[in-house]
Amino acid sequence: MLKDLRDAVYEANMDLPKRGLVVYTWGNVSGVDRDKALVVIKPSGVEYDELKPEDLVIVDFDNKIVEGKMNPSSDTKTHVELYKSFPTVGGIVHTHSPHAVGWAQAGRDIPCYGTTHADYFYGPVPCTRNLTREEVDGDYELNTGKVIVATFKERNLDPLAVPGVICRCHGPFTWGKSPAQAVYHAVVLEEMAKMAMYTITIDPNAAEAPQYVLDKHYLRKHGPNAYYGQGN
Amino acid sequence: MLKDLRDAVYEANMDLPKRGLVVYTWGNVSGVDRDKALVVIKPSGVEYDELKPEDLVIVDFDNKIVEGKMNPSSDTKTHVELYKSFPTVGGIVHTHSPHAVGWAQAGRDIPCYGTTHADYFYGPVPCTRNLTREEVDGDYELNTGKVIVATFKERNLDPLAVPGVICRCHGPFTWGKSPAQAVYHAVVLEEMAKMAMYTITIDPNAAEAPQYVLDKHYLRKHGPNAYYGQGN
Amino acid sequence: MLKDLRDAVYEANMDLPKRGLVVYTWGNVSGVDRDKALVVIKPSGVEYDELKPEDLVIVDFDNKIVEGKMNPSSDTKTHVELYKSFPTVGGIVHTHSPHAVGWAQAGRDIPCYGTTHADYFYGPVPCTRNLTREEVDGDYELNTGKVIVATFKERNLDPLAVPGVICRCHGPFTWGKSPAQAVYHAVVLEEMAKMAMYTITIDPNAAEAPQYVLDKHYLRKHGPNAYYGQGN
Amino acid sequence: MLKDLRDAVYEANMDLPKRGLVVYTWGNVSGVDRDKALVVIKPSGVEYDELKPEDLVIVDFDNKIVEGKMNPSSDTKTHVELYKSFPTVGGIVHTHSPHAVGWAQAGRDIPCYGTTHADYFYGPVPCTRNLTREEVDGDYELNTGKVIVATFKERNLDPLAVPGVICRCHGPFTWGKSPAQAVYHAVVLEEMAKMAMYTITIDPNAAEAPQYVLDKHYLRKHGPNAYYGQGN
Repeated sequence: MLKDLRDAVYEANMDLPKRGLVVYTWGNVSGVDRDKALVVIKPSGVEYDELKPEDLVIVDFDNKIVEGKMNPSSDTKTHVELYKSFPTVGGIVHTHSPHAVGWAQAGRDIPCYGTTHADYFYGPVPCTRNLTREEVDGDYELNTGKVIVATFKERNLDPLAVPGVICRCHGPFTWGKSPAQAVYHAVVLEEMAKMAMYTITIDPNAAEAPQYVLDKHYLRKHGPNAYYGQGN
Repeated sequence: MLKDLRDAVYEANMDLPKRGLVVYTWGNVSGVDRDKALVVIKPSGVEYDELKPEDLVIVDFDNKIVEGKMNPSSDTKTHVELYKSFPTVGGIVHTHSPHAVGWAQAGRDIPCYGTTHADYFYGPVPCTRNLTREEVDGDYELNTGKVIVATFKERNLDPLAVPGVICRCHGPFTWGKSPAQAVYHAVVLEEMAKMAMYTITIDPNAAEAPQYVLDKHYLRKHGPNAYYGQGN
Repeated sequence: MLKDLRDAVYEANMDLPKRGLVVYTWGNVSGVDRDKALVVIKPSGVEYDELKPEDLVIVDFDNKIVEGKMNPSSDTKTHVELYKSFPTVGGIVHTHSPHAVGWAQAGRDIPCYGTTHADYFYGPVPCTRNLTREEVDGDYELNTGKVIVATFKERNLDPLAVPGVICRCHGPFTWGKSPAQAVYHAVVLEEMAKMAMYTITIDPNAAEAPQYVLDKHYLRKHGPNAYYGQGN
Repeated sequence: MLKDLRDAVYEANMDLPKRGLVVYTWGNVSGVDRDKALVVIKPSGVEYDELKPEDLVIVDFDNKIVEGKMNPSSDTKTHVELYKSFPTVGGIVHTHSPHAVGWAQAGRDIPCYGTTHADYFYGPVPCTRNLTREEVDGDYELNTGKVIVATFKERNLDPLAVPGVICRCHGPFTWGKSPAQAVYHAVVLEEMAKMAMYTITIDPNAAEAPQYVLDKHYLRKHGPNAYYGQGN
């Protein structure tokens, strides 16, 4: 069932430790089949070097297990909420990559200081508010998803133009058209978060990049007039 | 004698350099057999790439060598004191991992800024006071253990809920139910210490995570209502 | 066509990931044949582990493709402008190496704090001004090259004595007599940028190295009286 | 000639890149034969992956080449001056390891913040003054050695109790009883320099470790009452 998606989600999960983004089990990748409304996701708490494609769990949009013997990631409800609210998203990643966590713990958006950021994120990476006590004590992982979605709605952001978020006191979620692209954005986000920390270490009052530089860099890679890459 | 424990302590010791936590011989792992009241510990000053299981030393709760041809770790009395005072602990690790040492040398508890920390440590990582001249000039390693125990007693901390400490001007000790879990906590502590340093680099006045977030994260992994992982 | 130069440019490109300077496709190396006025450059957006020598693209000084089936790097016009304006340069590198980007995003020249820097860069590494909206909306990559050239002209710098620049809100370009030397300077620049960041972390008011130390270090490696190395 | 020392110096040189202390050719190790008053040292500007034992150069205490076809390290006169002034030293290392360079460029002694430092360096790592213009324009490398020696004399330091120095605006030299021990101290110094930078990042006003902690840690590893290690 969902053989191709399962393989893609497995490969994307295995890419996390290879890219140095996770320690132990601190991360997970999922992918969605939009036609069937099913999500393939990493099982909870399984070490990457023991993970096998058949361990992945398939859940529906009500978070019910459709296939798989293991418990799905404890973050499953967050993933599913994002898939339901962001219809263009095909894959989602959660990590605790350290520089992105640093910004999340400081409770600050990651400013767009330059072109490395602007090539992939069209503006600052938003940091959500803290969840309230009620949200945490209630359906915590679902509410995490809801707060991310609310953040994007309030700020009027397109999830594919800003393919990630940092959750206050927690860490990053990134996404993309596919599980592989979601991992790509997780790598980019950590790299951007590191560069932004270096920038304010060098000058605490560093200015953000001009908007027209963002426009240029984002649009030379994305949209109808993109000219970066081989056009495929 | 104590073949299984010896193997577990050996594997845990060898995990330290693999996880990037030690330079040269700057670390050691021990494990305890509670029935026999015996501790298996790394020999002093032996390089990890030369360490063999049979080099490990077995001492009793009076720090007397029961088996082994080499001198036990110079920190042996600290380990034994912790085993005697923390009856739920099965394994102990000491390292000089650099970010944890940074906090220890700054003499500051590591604040709980987020969920990475809260998943494993239920509150700040305590930093002990400096030992007095008398404590240092006397039975130094024993007194190091006593000051750790006193810190936990004064603050009314459960050693399994806060599975580690940083010793002022020195470095971290971590522990767990087993030697392997103690190493796991050493890795987590270094990662948390790094993230906490990044956090205050980005915002020197960063706020700690709300208590209800700590409660949620710690308790979704630990205790009777835990739902993280595969329940085994 | 240009077999030797192609091989040199290929090897230099492959050295970037090996030296840890690039993530994904974030970098490119070119080389020039001065007699034929042709530039060999990496194709745009191709992953390093898939790059083959035959993928490299040859363009002339009008940025027209002379050989190659792929699109050349989106930064090609910047490279060509530098070759046209800096006649002693034989190879050029662009990366997003993180510490150099940190300085570029902070908009500050990298001060010459010591001999590691002075051995290769005879003075601070200049940071260009931001491009204007008109320069960005116009021929962006060409204008990037023009602003670099203008920076060197205004400051009266010899491109071989200061073999690199950081572009404001963007990142570093380095160059040298050959593609291999340009990569060498990219590695040096990142290392210098890191050391300079450490220096101001330790003392925000750190003084630059005295001019006579710069003179000594630069000139013991370069020029007619150089005495470093084996004289070849 | 000096086969054993040559092998020891070769192995110690090759350990520098393996320990991550050098980029390209930025470092060198030497060893001394006290009976013959001869020094074996790395040739200047040779890449580590091309270095062979027979490339090493032997010089006498007047810096004259006694054996070897290549130019000795450009820092040879510094090494020889140190051997002549520090009669207990058997091996010397120079690197540009980045955190030690950070302190050297900031012009600050590395304070002894804790036991990692105190285990090997009995007090702060001294930072020399800048050389004067006359000292730089004259016999630069010889004067570098003289300023190091003067620093130790003024502060009344024993070179084996404080086995290294950072040269202002330059970088570290370390030494030991043998070339291997000198490399060990180079690794320790970089690690200490990193931890000290982290310490002041966390608390810019961090206090140094009490003197009695230094005494304890240094003396449990060194001197007649040492009890660390296996006593060999």
